[in-house]
Amino acid sequence: MRVLGVDPGTATVGYGVVDETEDGDLVAVKYGVITTPAKMPMHDRLSIIHNELRQVIDQTKPDRAGVEELFFAKNVTTGITVAQGRGVILLTLAQAGLIIHEYKPHQIKQSISGYGAAGKPQMQEMVRILLNLDTIPSPDDAADGLAIAITDIHSARLGDLTADGYDS
Amino acid sequence: MRVLGVDPGTATVGYGVVDETEDGDLVAVKYGVITTPAKMPMHDRLSIIHNELRQVIDQTKPDRAGVEELFFAKNVTTGITVAQGRGVILLTLAQAGLIIHEYKPHQIKQSISGYGAAGKPQMQEMVRILLNLDTIPSPDDAADGLAIAITDIHSARLGDLTADGYDS
Repeated sequence: MRVLGVDPGTATVGYGVVDETEDGDLVAVKYGVITTPAKMPMHDRLSIIHNELRQVIDQTKPDRAGVEELFFAKNVTTGITVAQGRGVILLTLAQAGLIIHEYKPHQIKQSISGYGAAGKPQMQEMVRILLNLDTIPSPDDAADGLAIAITDIHSARLGDLTADGYDS
Repeated sequence: MRVLGVDPGTATVGYGVVDETEDGDLVAVKYGVITTPAKMPMHDRLSIIHNELRQVIDQTKPDRAGVEELFFAKNVTTGITVAQGRGVILLTLAQAGLIIHEYKPHQIKQSISGYGAAGKPQMQEMVRILLNLDTIPSPDDAADGLAIAITDIHSARLGDLTADGYDS
């Protein structure tokens, strides 16, 4: 099983592709970030996100995808911008025919570290250990993408019982 | 010149296509709404919006597009949902190669009625008069789409001096 995890955004979209081997090992296949310049027109930024994410999907051919849900209490303007990117991400995953699930931040933390309020360093170290990497994956948003992919693999193992999302 | 105006949303996307004739008359070519069920998975709702908007573009072949900007003071959750739809709308317009401009609500009201704080009935009646229609276009979101298209035509007449948007 191969899973693509996506940490949504508009300035920076983090992604990680993880395989679960037949032995149950987790292997990082590819991870990185898609970035778009803040001064570029929004529709061009969204086109970049769509095209580059589509490229990642075409290269790695995942079976499923996990996407983090959004919560904004503080800045509505930033929230709108990130949500526009997230809409394009969901469309791109759906167009590729992937099974899509959405996860709340605390679900991802719980799944990776066993603790729903885990801090960033703790999460990154757990992602490193779970994927048997020598160093913490960077940048941060790429590590977040890997964490979301691992969460989706854990969810699939449990028959998606813990997921809030839907099959596509 | 043919312009597509889009009133963004996820449950309901309003659109209107307006021609400016060589005599400067405005003619409603097509208008309507794209609706998606609230209980459907978000990525499926976004796919419907993308596909149906693409169909409107393919059928009517507009040169330009106007899209309303979003402002949310009250409900952040609704704001996120609408913004996800808006992201897909902007991507769809960009993929079709349209010149895209974004307009704030008060710019649309100013352009249609000459008054930036005009009410809904006043706006609808002005859209009816400007397009020389017998009755007010319905549903409301379709009338909003037409108002945005007319705003973009007014903006183009002024050399896009008043627009906040960008050329694609």
